[in-house]
Amino acid sequence: MADPGTHAFLASLAGVKQEVDRRLEQFLDEKVQEASGLSASSAEMVEILKAFTLRSGKRFRAALARSGHACLAGGEPEAVWNVAMSMELVQSYLLIHDDVIDQDDTRRGGSTVHRTYETIHRERFSRRDPEHFGTSMAIMCGDLAGALALEVLNRAEIDPARRRDVLSAFSDMLFRVIHGESLDVLAESEETVTEEKLCRIYDLKVSAYTLEGPLHMGALLAGAGREDLERMTRYAGPLGQAFQIQDDILGLFGDEKKTGKPVGSDIQAGKRTFLVLKALEWGSPEDRTFLRGRLGTRRLDAGDLERIRTIVRNTGSLEHAVNLARGLGAQAREALAGCGWRPEGLRFLEGAVSFVQQREY
Amino acid sequence: MADPGTHAFLASLAGVKQEVDRRLEQFLDEKVQEASGLSASSAEMVEILKAFTLRSGKRFRAALARSGHACLAGGEPEAVWNVAMSMELVQSYLLIHDDVIDQDDTRRGGSTVHRTYETIHRERFSRRDPEHFGTSMAIMCGDLAGALALEVLNRAEIDPARRRDVLSAFSDMLFRVIHGESLDVLAESEETVTEEKLCRIYDLKVSAYTLEGPLHMGALLAGAGREDLERMTRYAGPLGQAFQIQDDILGLFGDEKKTGKPVGSDIQAGKRTFLVLKALEWGSPEDRTFLRGRLGTRRLDAGDLERIRTIVRNTGSLEHAVNLARGLGAQAREALAGCGWRPEGLRFLEGAVSFVQQREY
Repeated sequence: MADPGTHAFLASLAGVKQEVDRRLEQFLDEKVQEASGLSASSAEMVEILKAFTLRSGKRFRAALARSGHACLAGGEPEAVWNVAMSMELVQSYLLIHDDVIDQDDTRRGGSTVHRTYETIHRERFSRRDPEHFGTSMAIMCGDLAGALALEVLNRAEIDPARRRDVLSAFSDMLFRVIHGESLDVLAESEETVTEEKLCRIYDLKVSAYTLEGPLHMGALLAGAGREDLERMTRYAGPLGQAFQIQDDILGLFGDEKKTGKPVGSDIQAGKRTFLVLKALEWGSPEDRTFLRGRLGTRRLDAGDLERIRTIVRNTGSLEHAVNLARGLGAQAREALAGCGWRPEGLRFLEGAVSFVQQREY
Repeated sequence: MADPGTHAFLASLAGVKQEVDRRLEQFLDEKVQEASGLSASSAEMVEILKAFTLRSGKRFRAALARSGHACLAGGEPEAVWNVAMSMELVQSYLLIHDDVIDQDDTRRGGSTVHRTYETIHRERFSRRDPEHFGTSMAIMCGDLAGALALEVLNRAEIDPARRRDVLSAFSDMLFRVIHGESLDVLAESEETVTEEKLCRIYDLKVSAYTLEGPLHMGALLAGAGREDLERMTRYAGPLGQAFQIQDDILGLFGDEKKTGKPVGSDIQAGKRTFLVLKALEWGSPEDRTFLRGRLGTRRLDAGDLERIRTIVRNTGSLEHAVNLARGLGAQAREALAGCGWRPEGLRFLEGAVSFVQQREY
């Protein structure tokens, strides 16, 4: 049951999605055209990127960029949409590489880019290995998305006095999310993961990247000062943690039909989420042995899943996570108190807190 | 035996190398510091990138960026060095990903980044697969190099009226080199490669990326107009082709001690170079069968290599390549005729032509 804040948030998100998708389609069609001047396979790569980018996606980052601007200035200059498009292309860039790293088959309700190229190889070629070909082409396709994210950002008409700051927020965001991803890869190989490290990963991958980066870039377009930027950071920090904890909860207790992601897939992938970490810490020796034994098991049956859920519930890990997410949400809301920002932007940020706390997908 | 032009060229290159390496070291040390605030492994990744970047490299791209500027303006603003550093970080970015794609063990006289991380995994971790870990971390380390290339470029003090053009040349260069790489990956899987496709790959990977991109960026710092940029394109086009053809020749007939790359490694990797393509076209049926059978063979003995060289010589493929490279070099030189550029920049561009035609490494 969504409250009015969440309702307005979702309506706003839907509006942004329509607009940014239309613009992304136009931009990527133009790049398909340009690439077709190089070769048919170059055009095909842009087509694959276009399909991957447009097939799905909430456009949360695009909407945050827009809100960051709307908090501080009226009107909607074209540059806001350039930043929004850039955020979504960066997201494609990271997801395409992330899918190679996680060896995932599907994403956004379709084949991952490396699997798409694997299939292309099987259909057309006989030399070399289809799987390695898929990996290689996906690395390049991700890199291409990154280059296009920069191109569309650089096309923006930005006050020359602010252009460098916007770009600098962009490269700073990349620096942090790439480190977040790397720490995530490392964590999967490490025997133990500490809560501190997990928080650091959430901070880099969600707070800094998903929330703060787009907000700052939008705000900088409107000439944000240091105080505004710092307040946005204080908002993004706890909200990102809450978002990720909620994500972990949904991954184990959510409705597959709503989340679009198989329940227990984090466990299957061997990810030590916050939920698992606390259950391991607080569980009985048998609980721990069972949980450890199931982490990274490709086949989890319904009984296994139910037992994992019971452990997470009985150890108090679930309740702890729910409370933590609630407290973090409150912190994010507090960061907005007395900001004096324009209602159009502010409402979206408030709605985002409600959404994170109530979301079922 | 190097002529005076080549001599001056090499001296200039050495000077640039010293300066750009010093600055890169300083910049990357600063980023190690920053990453150590995230985690020890984040700092380690920047250290690995730093070692990879500084351990070797001719700094040809950095020198071209500097010359692009020097052709049009006196003095040497700091921004020239930002562009130069950015070019070398982009090179690390592409090489790190390229090494994953080519599954190479060594680069620049040391371990490739994915192999370095593979070793780290073996030494420290027991969960997951070392090889996939190496690939994953190298994808991230490459992405990091790309983000840092943008950061250092964006730090440059550039006339606000020119900033967007410089950045746009940067993203355009990325767009083209990534497509060049992808076509290269595709070519390795395709049964046949046409001369046209090979030229396209050389054009994107060498002419547009190695030569034109840095030249244009340097020139744009100095406020280059359309005519200057077009002339640089006319210079870069044929010189890039000549450079790559010369590279192919050295790969088969060069001195391993000078090139730093095992003779015949292209053949072993199954690459259809210009030299091989023509030998296949002009060779006898037996020559072709032999050559086709050796492409992509991991172990080539001295006898095989000698026979391949003989085929390439006897079919006239070698002579054709040498003549072609010479003609292309002449075209590049012609593009400079009557340009009216400042001698300091121009001399380097002329020297580059001599170098490409006489280079032994």
